[in-house]
Amino acid sequence: MARQEKETGGVEWRITLGDGSSKSLVPETGPVSRVWMGLKSLIAGFVLKVWKFLKKAWDIGVDDPRKVIHCLKVGMALTVVSLVYFTRPLYEGVGGNAMWAIMTVVVVFENTVGATISKSLNRVFGTTLAGFLAFGVHWVASQSGHKFEPVVIGASVFLLASAATFSRFIPSVKARFDYGALIFILTFSLVAVSGYRVEELFDLAHQRLSTIIIGTSLCVLVTMLICPIWAGQELNALISRNMDKLADSLDGCVEEYFDHNGELEDSDKQPGKNLIGYKCVLNSKTTEESMTNFARWEPAHGRFNFKHPWKQYLKIGASMRSCAYSIEALNNCVDSENQAPEFIKKHLSNICLKVSSNSSCVIKELAKTIKTLKKSSSIDFLVEEMSGAVQDLQNEIKSLPNLLRPAELLLPKSKETEKTTSAIYLLEVIPVVILISLLIETSSRIQDIVKTVEELVNAAEFKAEDDDKAKQNQANMNRIVPSQQDDDRQTEKALERV
Amino acid sequence: MARQEKETGGVEWRITLGDGSSKSLVPETGPVSRVWMGLKSLIAGFVLKVWKFLKKAWDIGVDDPRKVIHCLKVGMALTVVSLVYFTRPLYEGVGGNAMWAIMTVVVVFENTVGATISKSLNRVFGTTLAGFLAFGVHWVASQSGHKFEPVVIGASVFLLASAATFSRFIPSVKARFDYGALIFILTFSLVAVSGYRVEELFDLAHQRLSTIIIGTSLCVLVTMLICPIWAGQELNALISRNMDKLADSLDGCVEEYFDHNGELEDSDKQPGKNLIGYKCVLNSKTTEESMTNFARWEPAHGRFNFKHPWKQYLKIGASMRSCAYSIEALNNCVDSENQAPEFIKKHLSNICLKVSSNSSCVIKELAKTIKTLKKSSSIDFLVEEMSGAVQDLQNEIKSLPNLLRPAELLLPKSKETEKTTSAIYLLEVIPVVILISLLIETSSRIQDIVKTVEELVNAAEFKAEDDDKAKQNQANMNRIVPSQQDDDRQTEKALERV
Repeated sequence: MARQEKETGGVEWRITLGDGSSKSLVPETGPVSRVWMGLKSLIAGFVLKVWKFLKKAWDIGVDDPRKVIHCLKVGMALTVVSLVYFTRPLYEGVGGNAMWAIMTVVVVFENTVGATISKSLNRVFGTTLAGFLAFGVHWVASQSGHKFEPVVIGASVFLLASAATFSRFIPSVKARFDYGALIFILTFSLVAVSGYRVEELFDLAHQRLSTIIIGTSLCVLVTMLICPIWAGQELNALISRNMDKLADSLDGCVEEYFDHNGELEDSDKQPGKNLIGYKCVLNSKTTEESMTNFARWEPAHGRFNFKHPWKQYLKIGASMRSCAYSIEALNNCVDSENQAPEFIKKHLSNICLKVSSNSSCVIKELAKTIKTLKKSSSIDFLVEEMSGAVQDLQNEIKSLPNLLRPAELLLPKSKETEKTTSAIYLLEVIPVVILISLLIETSSRIQDIVKTVEELVNAAEFKAEDDDKAKQNQANMNRIVPSQQDDDRQTEKALERV
Repeated sequence: MARQEKETGGVEWRITLGDGSSKSLVPETGPVSRVWMGLKSLIAGFVLKVWKFLKKAWDIGVDDPRKVIHCLKVGMALTVVSLVYFTRPLYEGVGGNAMWAIMTVVVVFENTVGATISKSLNRVFGTTLAGFLAFGVHWVASQSGHKFEPVVIGASVFLLASAATFSRFIPSVKARFDYGALIFILTFSLVAVSGYRVEELFDLAHQRLSTIIIGTSLCVLVTMLICPIWAGQELNALISRNMDKLADSLDGCVEEYFDHNGELEDSDKQPGKNLIGYKCVLNSKTTEESMTNFARWEPAHGRFNFKHPWKQYLKIGASMRSCAYSIEALNNCVDSENQAPEFIKKHLSNICLKVSSNSSCVIKELAKTIKTLKKSSSIDFLVEEMSGAVQDLQNEIKSLPNLLRPAELLLPKSKETEKTTSAIYLLEVIPVVILISLLIETSSRIQDIVKTVEELVNAAEFKAEDDDKAKQNQANMNRIVPSQQDDDRQTEKALERV
């Protein structure tokens, strides 16, 4: 019996002989051609890797063109500052310190306006403070005689560097002044040490500071004037986008649960995307924190004024994550192997879908509130509607045991059989009961989100939506009774799916 | 009627008169003393703030003395390099570039060995690569005539700075070479621009590189030789510590649920700490990622060899987070207002506690495996025990409806009443059923953790625990039957509480 195997990795043909031993089929080639082959596959592999890398980079650029714009902005700022110092000799004019301007641009230019301003201010103030201190230390050292001078300098560098490094561990410092502390250490050491040799210490400090200010000003101007990316705006958009994702996940999750065995097979074919949107919410804590931090450095821009309560966004983010946790639990119900019997599912399907669609409507309204920065006129109504649906659902559970009885009528009615059937149904009904309880939990967490968003609305003094529009909304609401409105929404959704 | 109110903030005495109006009692003072008072309270506030800040800093230092040691290490490295250049004039010897050594130390010195090495290598290679490229560009520019020279330089700075900035958006580059890309831009611009004026471009590059190598070597030596903090070791400890926290949370959560109305009031008085340990797991994703990244730069150290599969820790972390999500849901059950009736709780308490304690034993064994880097001899047994307990719990649920019947015997047995009672019980039993299903879910997720840890054990080729010890363990297990062992454990816990 001869069998051919193909191993992955290095390709090798192997024949298994009748006696169980095997022999590999190596093409008979000289060492030169073997080396050539090896080299060829190595190069091919390298080219493929580079190609994949470039493709990935291209995708990133296409996905978010603002990243490309940011890169061009950096290139531009750097070219401008380089050419200025290229035409004005680097070691004349502003002195050898001219390169600090180039360095500043490279180090300070960040993606968002807030981050750039934060780093710029940190750099300027860190340098100034350290410069003054170093100046003082230098004076003390020069007064203490030739012998003690290195001791004073060394001790001061040691103490201040240690202290400044330690301050970077303190959360409040780390969040806002981490870079400043670094620059402080850097400048202090440089000035304290170089001060001994350079006679014009004051000139040095003055030159360094002026070049840094030139560099930072250029960065701040470019970042603010050419296609600015405001951290605040980004944060606002992120929160609003995440809310939409939460709503979609919730909707998708409950729909998938009740359509598990078919009906909407088309939408089943592209699962995941909608369903796992909530994971973005779970993972965006760090981004939210840094964005909030940068947003606080930004001046008034667009529809945000200087005192916009950015910190409130952290609270909103936290309440959203808490809601995402229960959606994650809901999602597990959908994936679970234990499913309730079809007739129970069918019975509960409408009311559950109503709760989930009402809940997601509330979230979407909140997303709209944040996106438009306008006080919603319909949020109270929507929350009430959601609470109503939840109440209905709770009543429905109360009547669940009655639903289980009729099935028993088909069986002979001995006490023992009844017990058993009831036991089976209780077990079978558990998955759907868990789903429902999670749904109720989710809606109560949505109310927490509503609260945090309301706090934002009050703190930032959002204006109401246009009066005309508000009136129209009100009219619509009075005309359409809740259940009808809900049916409409579901029909819309069904249509969208077709 | 006169009433005196004391407002917080500014102290003010106010009298409410009989007719309802009120009059504030302002001591009659001149403007000088008022300014003095204001100044005094301002200073007091400032002192209080500084005091609080210092107290916080002190707490951080006491909490983790290694942070203090790190600061002293930075101070030391910086003092050494400063004094070297203080005694050897800064603008002679290695040239004006001597300050690059100081800058390198400030910028490159990080908390962990891996981070320091990562930054050092990035700095050295970024500088080298950029230096060579800038050299080439400089040559091309000098060949293209006086008119085109600025154009060539400007265009190359623009293109390379843009490209390098863009590369920092690519996740794989960002994770490992972010700093290198920054240094590349910096060095390239500096050399390309300054190259025009400085005749000895090659000397400049050589000097800069040598000072950077001196700086980085010093940093790497200090960070590795004096109380080194290895990112790998930290990651290992973090994962193991987080596992212990997960186990404690799970245990604490289920215990609190069943002891809700008393018995262990002492332990109830210090809630939270144990219970919310799982939140550390939810929040440590970013830390794990950066630690993993740094650990991959580290040489073999302690019990970790160079090829230790650090990336596997990310998988373990992910499976732990997935488990933490269900513990978070469990925790909500505990806090929930709807509680099952006491007699059902009492009935299920033992078996639930058994599942939770068996589950947490599995997690703790995994934590031990990771902590000691030894293959556990008892993990299979513990997992089996947990599965057994889960199976028992599932059987228990099946018999739950039988439990509900006896209570009905107390009531008159009309069909209608029976229905109603059954309905009530079904509703009342829901909270505990949800808790149980979450408990089962948690244990299935623990099995995922077991799998990922096993992958680590195989990939890193952990050795088995000492043979003697293993045998002893085996003997113990054979002697003690599971339930007895479990009782022992519970007694132990009860004793600990007393």
